[in-house]
Amino acid sequence: MRIQGISGSRGVAVGNVYKYIQEEIVIPDYEVAEDQVEAEIAKFATAMAATLKQLDTIRQKALVDMGADEAAIFEAHMQIAQDPSLSDGIKALVESSKMNVVAATAQTIETFAAIFIGMDDPYMRERGADIKDIGDRLMRNMLGMNPRGLSHISGEVIIVAQDLAPSDTASLDKSVVKGIVTAAGGPTSHAAIMARTLEIPAVMGVGDIEGFADDVRAVVLGTDGEVITEPSDEEWDRYTKEAALFQEELKRLKDSANLEAVTKDGHHVDLFGNIGKSKDADHALTMGAQGIGLYRTEFLYMENDELPTEDVQFEEYKKVAEVMHGNPVIIRTMDIGGDKELKCLDLPEEMNPFLGYRAIRISLNRPDIFKVQLRALLRASAFGDIHIMYPMIASVEEVKAANEMLDECKEELIAEGVAFNTDIKVGIMIEVPAAAVISQILAKYVDFFSIGTNDLCQYTLAVDRMNEAIGNLYQPLHPAVLRLIKHVIDASHDQGKFTGMCGELAGDPVATMILLGLGLDEFSMTASSIPLIKSILRSVTKAECEELAQKALSMDTAEEITAYAKSVLAEKGLA
Amino acid sequence: MRIQGISGSRGVAVGNVYKYIQEEIVIPDYEVAEDQVEAEIAKFATAMAATLKQLDTIRQKALVDMGADEAAIFEAHMQIAQDPSLSDGIKALVESSKMNVVAATAQTIETFAAIFIGMDDPYMRERGADIKDIGDRLMRNMLGMNPRGLSHISGEVIIVAQDLAPSDTASLDKSVVKGIVTAAGGPTSHAAIMARTLEIPAVMGVGDIEGFADDVRAVVLGTDGEVITEPSDEEWDRYTKEAALFQEELKRLKDSANLEAVTKDGHHVDLFGNIGKSKDADHALTMGAQGIGLYRTEFLYMENDELPTEDVQFEEYKKVAEVMHGNPVIIRTMDIGGDKELKCLDLPEEMNPFLGYRAIRISLNRPDIFKVQLRALLRASAFGDIHIMYPMIASVEEVKAANEMLDECKEELIAEGVAFNTDIKVGIMIEVPAAAVISQILAKYVDFFSIGTNDLCQYTLAVDRMNEAIGNLYQPLHPAVLRLIKHVIDASHDQGKFTGMCGELAGDPVATMILLGLGLDEFSMTASSIPLIKSILRSVTKAECEELAQKALSMDTAEEITAYAKSVLAEKGLA
Repeated sequence: MRIQGISGSRGVAVGNVYKYIQEEIVIPDYEVAEDQVEAEIAKFATAMAATLKQLDTIRQKALVDMGADEAAIFEAHMQIAQDPSLSDGIKALVESSKMNVVAATAQTIETFAAIFIGMDDPYMRERGADIKDIGDRLMRNMLGMNPRGLSHISGEVIIVAQDLAPSDTASLDKSVVKGIVTAAGGPTSHAAIMARTLEIPAVMGVGDIEGFADDVRAVVLGTDGEVITEPSDEEWDRYTKEAALFQEELKRLKDSANLEAVTKDGHHVDLFGNIGKSKDADHALTMGAQGIGLYRTEFLYMENDELPTEDVQFEEYKKVAEVMHGNPVIIRTMDIGGDKELKCLDLPEEMNPFLGYRAIRISLNRPDIFKVQLRALLRASAFGDIHIMYPMIASVEEVKAANEMLDECKEELIAEGVAFNTDIKVGIMIEVPAAAVISQILAKYVDFFSIGTNDLCQYTLAVDRMNEAIGNLYQPLHPAVLRLIKHVIDASHDQGKFTGMCGELAGDPVATMILLGLGLDEFSMTASSIPLIKSILRSVTKAECEELAQKALSMDTAEEITAYAKSVLAEKGLA
Repeated sequence: MRIQGISGSRGVAVGNVYKYIQEEIVIPDYEVAEDQVEAEIAKFATAMAATLKQLDTIRQKALVDMGADEAAIFEAHMQIAQDPSLSDGIKALVESSKMNVVAATAQTIETFAAIFIGMDDPYMRERGADIKDIGDRLMRNMLGMNPRGLSHISGEVIIVAQDLAPSDTASLDKSVVKGIVTAAGGPTSHAAIMARTLEIPAVMGVGDIEGFADDVRAVVLGTDGEVITEPSDEEWDRYTKEAALFQEELKRLKDSANLEAVTKDGHHVDLFGNIGKSKDADHALTMGAQGIGLYRTEFLYMENDELPTEDVQFEEYKKVAEVMHGNPVIIRTMDIGGDKELKCLDLPEEMNPFLGYRAIRISLNRPDIFKVQLRALLRASAFGDIHIMYPMIASVEEVKAANEMLDECKEELIAEGVAFNTDIKVGIMIEVPAAAVISQILAKYVDFFSIGTNDLCQYTLAVDRMNEAIGNLYQPLHPAVLRLIKHVIDASHDQGKFTGMCGELAGDPVATMILLGLGLDEFSMTASSIPLIKSILRSVTKAECEELAQKALSMDTAEEITAYAKSVLAEKGLA
């Protein structure tokens, strides 16, 4: 039987179904009597102790199986679980509202997680999944429910689950788990992100998993978002071969990490990685990144209740610069506000946060915060090729004001005798339509542009990409978006500057040829996308991409453009 | 003493201060005992009876003093007061939460009003002010507070108040009230809107009115947003003369209603009015509108709990068409969603409503609603020159899909033998940046464009204009906005189509010469702005406007452009 879902992670996998069913948490609805409050709160303490013990076990296993980076996630889980604001919130609800401790935990976790879930940033969404995962574990422990693990599976299986939490995926063994199918979620769910990182074909959002039985054969067509249960022998043989081919392709791609990103007619392209923490730079290098095209600094601001000091920031920026050995590292100044709340800054609630007080708008208003970051960036520039990039620029005045603050910082550092790169490159994100439209003007004031296609597309089309009711209207290959991209690239080239792209479109194979044809100088993306995009770049000529881009620009709709770009890829055997 | 506020209504006025102070409502915080619930609810019934009686008195006075249209406002107030969902809501709070009836009224009114306040539509915001006004009256009656009226004032006074509610402004006598100063509010507050309608100079948001004493002289500099208390004799003489000049200018402008909107070098411009109800068409005509450039149909959908029938809509559209005697009437199909909630449609709550499920996106998804409107519009087109306009278009597919539904409606009407204008003109709002960027493509599918500068500016600059934290970033004369406007006008002219504008920029005198210079064919605005804009158009040549526009397009910032346009107006004695 064929079941349609949503593509979560590309590729083909075959195996036997392993249903991973967690008993559902039923939140009790009793009220706590006055004299039982203390006993109720004690349940929380017991559950917390059990939770910390379990997390430590997972952490140790992750350390052995997957290394220090993965293990660190569960160290972070343990820290989050012990965050006093979590336990204080829960205790307050039990004490003041006489809510039972499980209900209080559910509500507190919900509030905590809601801050992160639905953010337009994969890192932040992941943090939301982490918090929910911890909450689930706490509640299961309170209710005496025993979670079934994923670590003891053997054979070659297709995991079929309602959804997968971080601690589930941490115990996934790639040599055993060949494919993933979830009832819930979409391409941005935690399970999908992990599947892509682990390169396991995955299909999300199949609705329910009633139709799956343990141990029957299944085929996961990750690219198409389809699952076949109980395939015919003929189907089984065919997809077993395809799965093997997919594994070969993965290997080939990985081997390409050291190859140059150059077209068949000798045009070199900068292929960079997007990262959110200095520790991710290593992975980006391994995957073949020749630089960092977007280092998001929000984590520094969101991790703590207090603003990060200049020294804390300096150390972090310096680390990335050093890891990248003199290759470019484009660091974006704080892009907070909008959907990214901040404990250490009291930001107003807004009716339309995406059109609100955020990013450079906050920075220019708060030199006390902004200049700390600029000083840290300048100091770190002595240790590598750091570029500074301002987010959410919409006008010339904003660039000028930011550069004035930067100049002040430079003067201060000179006066203090502190070293920095006096030729440090400064650029801006092109993500507000106004910036794209006046890119000819803005190019005078900067060294480079980096197009943020996610926001640019949202504003240009007036579509919140997180809003499911209008998800089909979010079209990064909309003719208006393509025209703006071309306009920006042309404006930069006219003045001898370069244009990169760090939005998701940069890592979308369907867009690669068009973007190269439009003259994009630098593609920056999630590290795991680099090998695939590089393989496309190495298989085409710049000339044919230019022809393709010209043709795409003549088309009226995103649908036509997408279909055309896909057909060209298919013709060349690259799809 | 000079006090700086915000310009609410232009012009200069002199007079003696009349402080209009309402005793502040103090909401009691007692809980209602179980056996007092009925008695508490009875208080509401008594207050309601008193409220209705007072409103009827105001209504009768308005009828005599100002005519049927103004009186109708208070009929509407009486209807809103008697809306069962209001009284049910209040009763429920008293019964279930034991809230006292004043607190319950405050909370219920707050919820009701919040739906309307903060909407990006003056009509809707007015409705919010109405609801608050009614709530205040109800609470005052419950608390036995006696409101001081505004109807018994004599002499020539400057009203100084915390704020003014609809029922306050209804009893304003223009021959007595020369100027208005409010502590609260801004240019979009009810008091400011009424002041502009009544052409009374007004300054809003002076912070507090402690510094004002009854019966001392004051000067209201409405254009500059400044107030002078206790002016010197010299100042008093000077501003008394200026106030007289202002009155003469108003008269001259009004006399110009029948003059043609034509430049000194003979270029005719369509000067149209924006309306929200058929009854406003008359006023637009009186002020010199040669057509309706924007008839918002949201009111039809928001007034009732049920969707308006085809016949109800038909009658309303027919009425406007008839009043306008064959002049163009551009009717925008429903622009609901976003900030305009709808009782008769269950719309989801959204994180970024301005980037959400709204307008044509809803219409195309709900042919059952949309085709009713299209049929009504077609039927009404037999009675005048109705144009149909789709809002929030972002792609060619949307225009095509809407036109397909329109064609279906035409076929149905032909089959039914119902008359309509088979040559009816169909256009689109250009308010999504994508539509502006691909206007060359869209022009193929429509007869005209109308630029909605409010939304276009919001999306292009990524600034929610209702968000006070970033109000200074909302710049309709931003170089990017000007370039997009030029791009749209050029695209329409290249294909023999016309471009109008119905956003607030069309009625802004600072922008008039630039827009004319860019080639804008039709300006549509609040009726009261027409005389001023016409006087500017009649004082300039198209050629000089083109030169000015060219120069504005070469500038880097909104600030430069605004300063330049203002200086040209001042040079010509038009500022």
